[in-house]
Amino acid sequence: MTVLDSRVPRHGANPRNLVPDDANDVEERIAVLEADVADVDDPAVRSAALSADLVFNLAGQVSHVDSMTAPLFDLHANTVSQFAFLDLLRRENTGARLVFTSTRQLFGHPRYLPVDEEHPVSPVDVNGITKYATEQLHLLYDEIYGLRSCVVRLTNVYGARQRLRDDFQGFLPIFIRRALDDEAITVFGDGTQQRDCLHVDDVVECLLLAALDPDAQGQLFNVGNDEHLELRVIADAIVRAAGSGRVEHIPWPSDRDAIDIGSYFGDSSKAKRMIGWEPRTTFAEGIERTIAFYRQRRSWYV
Amino acid sequence: MTVLDSRVPRHGANPRNLVPDDANDVEERIAVLEADVADVDDPAVRSAALSADLVFNLAGQVSHVDSMTAPLFDLHANTVSQFAFLDLLRRENTGARLVFTSTRQLFGHPRYLPVDEEHPVSPVDVNGITKYATEQLHLLYDEIYGLRSCVVRLTNVYGARQRLRDDFQGFLPIFIRRALDDEAITVFGDGTQQRDCLHVDDVVECLLLAALDPDAQGQLFNVGNDEHLELRVIADAIVRAAGSGRVEHIPWPSDRDAIDIGSYFGDSSKAKRMIGWEPRTTFAEGIERTIAFYRQRRSWYV
Repeated sequence: MTVLDSRVPRHGANPRNLVPDDANDVEERIAVLEADVADVDDPAVRSAALSADLVFNLAGQVSHVDSMTAPLFDLHANTVSQFAFLDLLRRENTGARLVFTSTRQLFGHPRYLPVDEEHPVSPVDVNGITKYATEQLHLLYDEIYGLRSCVVRLTNVYGARQRLRDDFQGFLPIFIRRALDDEAITVFGDGTQQRDCLHVDDVVECLLLAALDPDAQGQLFNVGNDEHLELRVIADAIVRAAGSGRVEHIPWPSDRDAIDIGSYFGDSSKAKRMIGWEPRTTFAEGIERTIAFYRQRRSWYV
Repeated sequence: MTVLDSRVPRHGANPRNLVPDDANDVEERIAVLEADVADVDDPAVRSAALSADLVFNLAGQVSHVDSMTAPLFDLHANTVSQFAFLDLLRRENTGARLVFTSTRQLFGHPRYLPVDEEHPVSPVDVNGITKYATEQLHLLYDEIYGLRSCVVRLTNVYGARQRLRDDFQGFLPIFIRRALDDEAITVFGDGTQQRDCLHVDDVVECLLLAALDPDAQGQLFNVGNDEHLELRVIADAIVRAAGSGRVEHIPWPSDRDAIDIGSYFGDSSKAKRMIGWEPRTTFAEGIERTIAFYRQRRSWYV
C-alpha cells in the first residue's frame, strides 16, 4: 500500500501514526511518498497512480475558516490538484476504483433533517464550493469514462490518530485537546445545535465497503451517525470521559456567525441499503477509546 | 467603459464588433484592454477592476466538448481565473456590482420542464462543473462580504456579432454559418428535442436590468425564451431566413451522445418578477435580423 502525503504545512499526516502498537502493525506494509497529487508529472505520483487498484482519495484542505482567508489555496488543494490527478487516472489507469471523501459542510444550512443525498447543496464557504466541484468530477468521470468512482460525504469524524494540535479540523479535535489539557471547552451560544459524530473505525469500514462494492460506483453517500447529540451534550461527554477540562458557554463570535449552519445530522440510509454499512460505535464508547488513546500518546498529538 | 479581453486563441472577441454602423456607435466610448482576469497583479487588470462600478463578467471557456478534452484549461479559465478576479474585488472594490453569466448546460438532463432555479444541478461535462463553482463563489461573496453579485444562466444565445467561425459555441452559430455558406445543417436524430433561443438584444437588456436592480443582488436567474422550438424547426427557420442551405438528419455520433441533454427550456419567471425582464424577440424576427447582419459583413465573421 502506498500513501501519498504532500506534507503541506498543517496538512501532512503525523508520522507517529504508523508506529506499531497492539492495534496497529501496518508500518512495514505501507510506503509513504512525500508528493502532491497535483504533481502528475512527478514520477513517484505517476507510478503510484498508475499501479493503484484502489484509490482512497482523502487529500485536501479541510479548514472552512482558512478557505475564506486563502480561497485560491483552497481551490488549488481541493480542485486543481484533484482535476490533475483524476485526469491522469482517466488517461492512464481506468482500471482503478476511487473513493473520494467529501464533507457534509457543503449542504450549508439544512433545509430539512436528516439530510439525505437529494438535499440541495448550498455551500457557506469556499471549501464547500471547491469540494463539491471535485465530487462532481469524480461522478462525471465515472459516468463518462467508466473510471469507477464514488463519493462519501463524511460528517464530524473523531478518534485515534487525528490532528489535535490546530483548531481548524472541526470542533471535535478542539474539544478533545482542551479536555486533555484540562482547559475550558468553549461552546458558542447555548449549544443546543445537534450534530452526528462518526468514529474513525466506522469511517474506515465505510471506505472499504465503498471501494469494494460494485454497487457503490458512480454513487454519492451521506455518511453520518444515527445518534444525534447536542453540542453541549458532546462537550459534557468529552469532559466526563477525560476526567478533566470543563465546558464554558460564550456568545457567538461575529466572524463565525456567518458560517454557522445550525443543527445538522445526515441520513445514511442509502449507504446502509446499497453497501451494507452500519455505524457501530456509540459516542460514549468511541470517546472513551479516543481519550485512552491520546492519554497514552499525549506528546505525539497534543 | 473598459473591456478586458484575454485574446486567448478562439476565445477573444472580434475587433470588428466595434466598427460603427447604424445601430452601433460605441467604438469611441470603449477601451479594450488585452488582459486576462486571472492576472490580478497586472496593473491594467487591477486598475480596471478597482475603478469599475458595474462588472459584466462574461469571461470564460464556453466549449462543452473542449472542456472534456482539456479539463484543466477549462478549470483555469472558468474557475481559477474567476476566483482570483473576484477575490481582488472582494479585497479592493467591494462597491462594484457584478453580473456573472453562466449556462443552462449545468442542469444536465432536465428532470422536469420548464427548468426553474430550484432544479437540481447535474453537470454532464467539465464546463458545467467549473461554471457552477464560479456561480457559487459570486453568490457566496455577495452573502458573506456584501460584494453585490448575481448570476444569469443563459440558454442558447444568437444574434449579431457572435463568433461563427468555429463549431464550439453551441448549435445556433453552426446552423447560421452553414446556411449562409449554402451548406447542409446537420441535425442529430429526428431533431424533436426542444430548445429556447435567446436573441442577444434580450440578453443585453437582461444583463443591464440585473446590474442595476438592487433586487437582483445575491440572486440566480434562469434566462430563456418562452418560445420552445424543436431543433428541426429551428434549422428549417434558419434555412428559410437565409434562403440558402438545407437540413440533413443523421444518427447521433457516439462521442456526442454522452453529453446530449434531451429537450431543454427554462422558466424565466423569476427574472420577470424580480427585475422586470421580458424576452421581446421571437425567433422568426431575431433570425431574420441576424441573417441580414451577417449577409452584410460575411467576411468579418464567417
